[in-house]
Amino acid sequence: MLTMQEALLALNAYWTEQGCLVSQPMNSEVGAGTLNPATFLRVQGPEPWRVAYVEPSVRPDDSRYGENPNRLQTHTQFQVILKPEPGNAQELYLGSLKALGIDIEAHDVRFVEDNWASPALGAWGLGWEVWLDGLEITQFTYFQQAGGMTLDPVSVEITYGLERILMALQGVSHFKDIAYAPGITYGEVFGQAEYEMSRYYLDDADVDTNRDLFEAYAKEARRLLDLRLPVPAYSYVLKCSHTFNVLDARGAISTTERARSFARMRGLAHDVAELWAERRAELGHPLGTGTGVVGADGAGAPQAEEPAGPTGLRTLVFEIGFEELPPAEATRVVDSVREALTAGLDATRLGHRALHVAATPRRVVVTLEGVEAAEPDHEQTVKGPKISAAYDAEGVPTPALLGFARSQDADPATLGRAAFGKNEHVVLTRSVAGRPAEEVLAQVLPVVVSGLRAEKNMRWNASGLSFSRPIRWILALLGDEVVPFSVSGLDAGRSTRVHRTAAQPVIEVAAADGYLELLARHGIIADTAARRAAIEAAAVRLAAEVGGTVDLEANRALVDEIANLVEYPTPILGSFDHKYLELPDQILTTVMRKHQRYLPVLDAQGALLPFFVTVANGACDQDVVRRGNEAVLRARYEDAAFFWRADLDTPLEAMQERLELLTFEDTLGSMADRAQRIGSVATEFASQLPMGARDLITLEKAAGLVKFDLGSQMVTELSSLAGVMAEVYAKKAGQPEEVAQALFEGELPRHSADRLPQSTPGALLALADRADLLSGLLPLGGAPTGGSDPFGLRRAALGMVNILRTHPALAHLTVSGMLKVAAERQPLAVSDESLAEAQQFVVRRFEQQLLEAGHAVQDVRAVLPLADRPVPAANRLAELEAARGSEELALAAAAIQRVLRIVPAGTEPTPDPQRYTAPAEGDLHEAVEKTRAVLGSQPDLRTFLAQSGLLVQAVDAFFEGVMVMDEDPAVRANRLALLATVLRLTTPLLAWAELK
Amino acid sequence: MLTMQEALLALNAYWTEQGCLVSQPMNSEVGAGTLNPATFLRVQGPEPWRVAYVEPSVRPDDSRYGENPNRLQTHTQFQVILKPEPGNAQELYLGSLKALGIDIEAHDVRFVEDNWASPALGAWGLGWEVWLDGLEITQFTYFQQAGGMTLDPVSVEITYGLERILMALQGVSHFKDIAYAPGITYGEVFGQAEYEMSRYYLDDADVDTNRDLFEAYAKEARRLLDLRLPVPAYSYVLKCSHTFNVLDARGAISTTERARSFARMRGLAHDVAELWAERRAELGHPLGTGTGVVGADGAGAPQAEEPAGPTGLRTLVFEIGFEELPPAEATRVVDSVREALTAGLDATRLGHRALHVAATPRRVVVTLEGVEAAEPDHEQTVKGPKISAAYDAEGVPTPALLGFARSQDADPATLGRAAFGKNEHVVLTRSVAGRPAEEVLAQVLPVVVSGLRAEKNMRWNASGLSFSRPIRWILALLGDEVVPFSVSGLDAGRSTRVHRTAAQPVIEVAAADGYLELLARHGIIADTAARRAAIEAAAVRLAAEVGGTVDLEANRALVDEIANLVEYPTPILGSFDHKYLELPDQILTTVMRKHQRYLPVLDAQGALLPFFVTVANGACDQDVVRRGNEAVLRARYEDAAFFWRADLDTPLEAMQERLELLTFEDTLGSMADRAQRIGSVATEFASQLPMGARDLITLEKAAGLVKFDLGSQMVTELSSLAGVMAEVYAKKAGQPEEVAQALFEGELPRHSADRLPQSTPGALLALADRADLLSGLLPLGGAPTGGSDPFGLRRAALGMVNILRTHPALAHLTVSGMLKVAAERQPLAVSDESLAEAQQFVVRRFEQQLLEAGHAVQDVRAVLPLADRPVPAANRLAELEAARGSEELALAAAAIQRVLRIVPAGTEPTPDPQRYTAPAEGDLHEAVEKTRAVLGSQPDLRTFLAQSGLLVQAVDAFFEGVMVMDEDPAVRANRLALLATVLRLTTPLLAWAELK
Repeated sequence: MLTMQEALLALNAYWTEQGCLVSQPMNSEVGAGTLNPATFLRVQGPEPWRVAYVEPSVRPDDSRYGENPNRLQTHTQFQVILKPEPGNAQELYLGSLKALGIDIEAHDVRFVEDNWASPALGAWGLGWEVWLDGLEITQFTYFQQAGGMTLDPVSVEITYGLERILMALQGVSHFKDIAYAPGITYGEVFGQAEYEMSRYYLDDADVDTNRDLFEAYAKEARRLLDLRLPVPAYSYVLKCSHTFNVLDARGAISTTERARSFARMRGLAHDVAELWAERRAELGHPLGTGTGVVGADGAGAPQAEEPAGPTGLRTLVFEIGFEELPPAEATRVVDSVREALTAGLDATRLGHRALHVAATPRRVVVTLEGVEAAEPDHEQTVKGPKISAAYDAEGVPTPALLGFARSQDADPATLGRAAFGKNEHVVLTRSVAGRPAEEVLAQVLPVVVSGLRAEKNMRWNASGLSFSRPIRWILALLGDEVVPFSVSGLDAGRSTRVHRTAAQPVIEVAAADGYLELLARHGIIADTAARRAAIEAAAVRLAAEVGGTVDLEANRALVDEIANLVEYPTPILGSFDHKYLELPDQILTTVMRKHQRYLPVLDAQGALLPFFVTVANGACDQDVVRRGNEAVLRARYEDAAFFWRADLDTPLEAMQERLELLTFEDTLGSMADRAQRIGSVATEFASQLPMGARDLITLEKAAGLVKFDLGSQMVTELSSLAGVMAEVYAKKAGQPEEVAQALFEGELPRHSADRLPQSTPGALLALADRADLLSGLLPLGGAPTGGSDPFGLRRAALGMVNILRTHPALAHLTVSGMLKVAAERQPLAVSDESLAEAQQFVVRRFEQQLLEAGHAVQDVRAVLPLADRPVPAANRLAELEAARGSEELALAAAAIQRVLRIVPAGTEPTPDPQRYTAPAEGDLHEAVEKTRAVLGSQPDLRTFLAQSGLLVQAVDAFFEGVMVMDEDPAVRANRLALLATVLRLTTPLLAWAELK
Repeated sequence: MLTMQEALLALNAYWTEQGCLVSQPMNSEVGAGTLNPATFLRVQGPEPWRVAYVEPSVRPDDSRYGENPNRLQTHTQFQVILKPEPGNAQELYLGSLKALGIDIEAHDVRFVEDNWASPALGAWGLGWEVWLDGLEITQFTYFQQAGGMTLDPVSVEITYGLERILMALQGVSHFKDIAYAPGITYGEVFGQAEYEMSRYYLDDADVDTNRDLFEAYAKEARRLLDLRLPVPAYSYVLKCSHTFNVLDARGAISTTERARSFARMRGLAHDVAELWAERRAELGHPLGTGTGVVGADGAGAPQAEEPAGPTGLRTLVFEIGFEELPPAEATRVVDSVREALTAGLDATRLGHRALHVAATPRRVVVTLEGVEAAEPDHEQTVKGPKISAAYDAEGVPTPALLGFARSQDADPATLGRAAFGKNEHVVLTRSVAGRPAEEVLAQVLPVVVSGLRAEKNMRWNASGLSFSRPIRWILALLGDEVVPFSVSGLDAGRSTRVHRTAAQPVIEVAAADGYLELLARHGIIADTAARRAAIEAAAVRLAAEVGGTVDLEANRALVDEIANLVEYPTPILGSFDHKYLELPDQILTTVMRKHQRYLPVLDAQGALLPFFVTVANGACDQDVVRRGNEAVLRARYEDAAFFWRADLDTPLEAMQERLELLTFEDTLGSMADRAQRIGSVATEFASQLPMGARDLITLEKAAGLVKFDLGSQMVTELSSLAGVMAEVYAKKAGQPEEVAQALFEGELPRHSADRLPQSTPGALLALADRADLLSGLLPLGGAPTGGSDPFGLRRAALGMVNILRTHPALAHLTVSGMLKVAAERQPLAVSDESLAEAQQFVVRRFEQQLLEAGHAVQDVRAVLPLADRPVPAANRLAELEAARGSEELALAAAAIQRVLRIVPAGTEPTPDPQRYTAPAEGDLHEAVEKTRAVLGSQPDLRTFLAQSGLLVQAVDAFFEGVMVMDEDPAVRANRLALLATVLRLTTPLLAWAELK
């Protein structure tokens, strides 16, 4: 059995053989190997670099006193940097697993999309988690930015999690049981430090001291940047980062402080990176500026084969090979390649039959049938001078014609005539030979490759290509011939790659025909739908083996994803211990579906059975893979069960008390303060509404408990279960069903596609929550900027609108009123101006929502003045849209806009009938009064329009018969006042000016 | 060629095979691998532990911007801990050198005494530097204490200096040129960091920030100790230590602050160690309490051989084998073993002839010739009751006699009679058989082993033995038989160990005869004198080969040392580049003799030649060893030349300015302040003396430059050259010879055996230096306590006395006067009381010096009142000793003591002759006056005694004829006043009361 230290030595030895320099861990606490200057600084700039090192990574937040089997305040990373990326980093990585003694043919090793970003470092990259039988053992990233600097060349970063790998290899279920070295366990070596450092990080670190340290470090870093010393400056950035993590673990970092500190650290990290790059340039890049090494092992130029002579119809196979695409991109690439290729072919005359595109995570395969040997020949007509200018009076060619003929290398005698519009011109008609298919395709196909774009793109070498993941090969066969082209150094050829673990991972393809079958023989199903079907069929069959079913409908999106995680699905049935069924379904299902991409197995009643279906990629030893996946699930469930039991032993009140230790925001107090405010705000809302006694009692109880589950261990660990656990724990503690439901619903909606509260108490709590958030954070400058919304205020505002819109019973509540109630309870004074801005913030989100739903801008703008109550505003919008195109609306709008144009703002609608001098004035007066009487106090647009004829006529007659701008100011004022009564009547209905 | 990273991997692999766990470097800056908790904590308590790890060790003070070829702010240690010590750690270590590809048979690998101590850690141990061809490559220590805790079991600590080893193996002369990994050098990997971190540590670290950090860390450490969390507490102790080092490198630590900070860190380290040990005990010592493993591989009990029958005279060889003893102990052990064995044998009757004891660093060998087969038989007499009690009147045995006979198991009839004093007793006489020699020796020899003690002793395992270095084997052969005994688990036998690199490092010895010849055949010369002679003969011969000589007389002590560094001297002639002869001889010689133990080679005029003689141990490849030693010397000289050239480019004034950056003491200012004071004080002394104009001019110039060389790079590096470099640099800068000399002499004496200043200006500067030190630091509480004298004040006081004693021209200066002049220039107010204490401090040292020189206590005390001027005091002491035994002294002392006994202190010596009532009064008055006239103003003891007859007679006559205590108070007072005149005359000569 490999001990941990043997594993470290094996990795060191392996990567040394691959040309890596062995470096040492950083002599300052770091949270990850990425932070070591051997990564963070060296990935900057053009100098090549290959390094490998161990990095004990300190995450104060993961402190568990050594009790949690999978979580440690210090875990051991093994870090590899390959710069520039070598083109075969995945293969090199698989080699390292073999060096660890892992039989990669037996296991299911998968590259699962995972895009890495570190906000504190201003760093991001695209890549994967590597799964070993469902266990995440490595992070694999093409590093795109660090310190906010775009990296060129791109580095590959490989980060192994040693404890996880060793637990799996040794088959132990607690990190303490890992054999660290012969005769001594991990727990024996590190157990006491785990306990004591956990004590420090969670309980005993002095907060004031650590704050002082953070400041001192940040100051020193800044000073050293000014002195142009990036190395010592960076050492202080690392100390900042660790100290921040300590404070965070102690619960001493509020939301705003977090954002501020991150911004500060990101700024320092950026300046360090920039300065380092400058300094290296000043030093002349001592390690050289190694070229990007694109296709360095190839001969360089594409094989310039002589295109085969045209011979009947042939099939084109065109395959672009990738490192594992994210599932969504594997779907998207099918369409984009189809579109690009169709467009490209349409611009040629090349004849062909059906086009078929399929994709797996590693390839998109185009099959184009019946490709003609060449474009047909065709005639080309070139327009020359006008006849009148081409020949003189005697019909002799003029110099103009002769010049044209010479420029076209044509005999003037062969020129013809043709009409263009009203003029007749000389024309040259010549026959053009069609290009051979190879030539046509060699122009079309490269554009498809270089034009590939994904939602999120990366560069990986100096080729200039950019896509979701690196493009590694191109196969292009027309019949049995290679279509000769090259894209950014990548040559099209006849090789393809099959499973990396195959005996022969690269194969040569003789001809295009039968290519998909060839792939199938190598265990690759190119068609997503086929993989999908295979997964569903097998899942149902496997579930049936244990008397269960799989809910295919509910798992449609998940199966879509899984189908694009493998090239050949190998569904495997796994089980877990019955005892974990004591955990709530939500937890079990969340872990299976979201974390592990397993399909849960249900019994006939829809209850969970202790089984799951996982889908491995290709051939493997199914027993090995099953055991591995079961161990992963067991570890996750054990984790959850630990929190579950701990929480069940904790009274709700004790959880609530813990909220006092969670800082919400410096100025706005603790999470306990916030919960107390939410309860009070919700109760105040209720007092403004007609409500049943039962709902009132429910609300009162729920208001006293709101957010208590943030103090539970489960939610501390799995924050996505906030609300869910409140409901579960409240019920377990004997709270009424409705109270539990309200507590859950108070968190809804949690994301844009989430459910909304059903019950009135739940809706009120949810509204109060969001009112508290907006009325507190907006005045403190927490408004989102650009793409960044650190406090989720956009989501909160939209949630508020959506809740109101789905609860007509709450229509009485106004956005401004709710914000005011919440603001009054904030521990800071919120000015009227701030409140107005907050209200506008919500209204803007509502407007945005309406526009995104496809409503016309002018219609939305027309109802926006009503938006403080979203339900009436939305109703009015519907009325308006229903009235669109009607004559009534057009006439009414025209009449009212006419009034609007002439009446100055602020004109009092108080005409003196005594001053009327024309009959039209009296008529209008009467029409306004009559209409008002008909409409009543809650006018709706439909009724108004139905009744608007009288008013419209009166307005029109008034403008026909009366000169508003009379010379007598008193008369003029009186006429304007009369018109103002029209506006008083109609503007509550719509912003008429917006109607076009 | 082995790269550095390959070397690290090789060491890791090798020590892993030896059962070491591989640990990681500390993730906090540490100055050495010892500080890593994997050493500092794990060596505490009984739990076994074997660990190996790399430790990048940060020493801010060693920052050189990457320019110095041998010195780095971060160097790479490889650290090994073996606990408990395995008994063969040296052999294991040699195995690791082989694993690095070092041919240890070709090279000269030596274990050179080096006792390690870390005051900041409260840690110490005994051991060696390991030399590879003169290059220190490893520190090897038997760890005795850490954190002030005595370690049991003892750990072996092995610390490799990787850069040095790799530079030697790769034959490069600058660390930057080390091949770190294939294709990349050390400089390319670490060069920029060396430069930038040097900038930080030497120039740019913010002092206030680092002070704040130190405080914060220390506070946090203390708080965590109170919380009983040794692991996080220790992490803060390490941060303290590093921050202290940063401050120190910035020159911000004064002498007193250093002492305070060390005490604080030592206190914290102790509490951490103690708490860790307690916690481990509470946890039940999870790693077990592995037994001390004394002779674990042996059968345990000594071979209880049947002693051979006595057969004529035999030779005893008794050898105790050690790990390399310090040279001084190899000398001392010969005497102590001879004494112990002689005493042991004297207590037996065993006959023997000559005893011969010889020693090498690894063994003491006793040869005892002509050992009798057994002790002779002898008669033993036992005394019984008195005859009178033994027989009754009838001559019948009494019960008393019968009882005696029974108790002795004797027949009453066989008892005899013998006289004891005046009484006759019954006696039993019986013959006792002598014990066989084996039995006698088996009792005597173990006592010699267990009684071994050195100047500084250690324990190494649980055997209870204690000596300078571990005792590893005992050979004891009487003729061809093993003397059967065992000491603390170590069995005597017939094995001995020869060179570790021999084909057969352990050999069996057949018989005692010819043992020394046997050793000689195995390349071991047991006799120190023989090794010495061989070294001298070869050194002279080798020097002659290059036309030079070796000054054997001047190098006597060095040859003594070298002779005890090897078991078989192999002198080798090496050379160095001519160009280094530009450096001053003092530097070249100091490096050769003190650092490298080389014998310098001189030409006929006594000037240095570019050669040296080094002495390797045993057989080796002389070319390899020569090259190695030459490379070491070159590196050291290159270092020195670097500073030399840099200093020569620096004006003296610029060096002086640097003194302002060196803090001397918080209150007492910078070193520049101190230098300024010394100059001023020395000038003031001069003004109190008759001095020639030339000396005055010299002093004035020297006073303006004093201590400037502390600002030179050379002295910063090699502080022992302070003063030496002042003289050299002053001359180079064109200062007069006398000024340069005075600047050098101002530093004398630097240690107890050092030279004293010769010139008056030099002496005055030296006195001023010491007066400044004492008058400043004593009032601040810097006085030495017990064995600790952190500021060297004892040495300063003694230096002051010695300078005065060798400069009679300065006899006019008083200690108190000098201290007062110096005190007036201190930036603090020194009270009269403090000054008096300082004067007493100096006088006590003087007293001690006189006593240690063998002067009688009473004589020393008698002259002590004069000690404020040491020269007159010493002269008086000589007069007193010369007068000792003379009648004059005895009579004078008796007379004066008689007067002293009766005259109360403070009596005015003003008698009124008018009141004399007896003739003896007038006679005494007259005798006093006459004697005073004869003695003059500067009385000396010799003259006084020669003239004392008159006074003594008058005193005696006075006491005979006069009743001092007359009833009339006036008469009485007048008589006491008359006697007081005697005291006024005589007490300036001596403290007569002390004479016995």
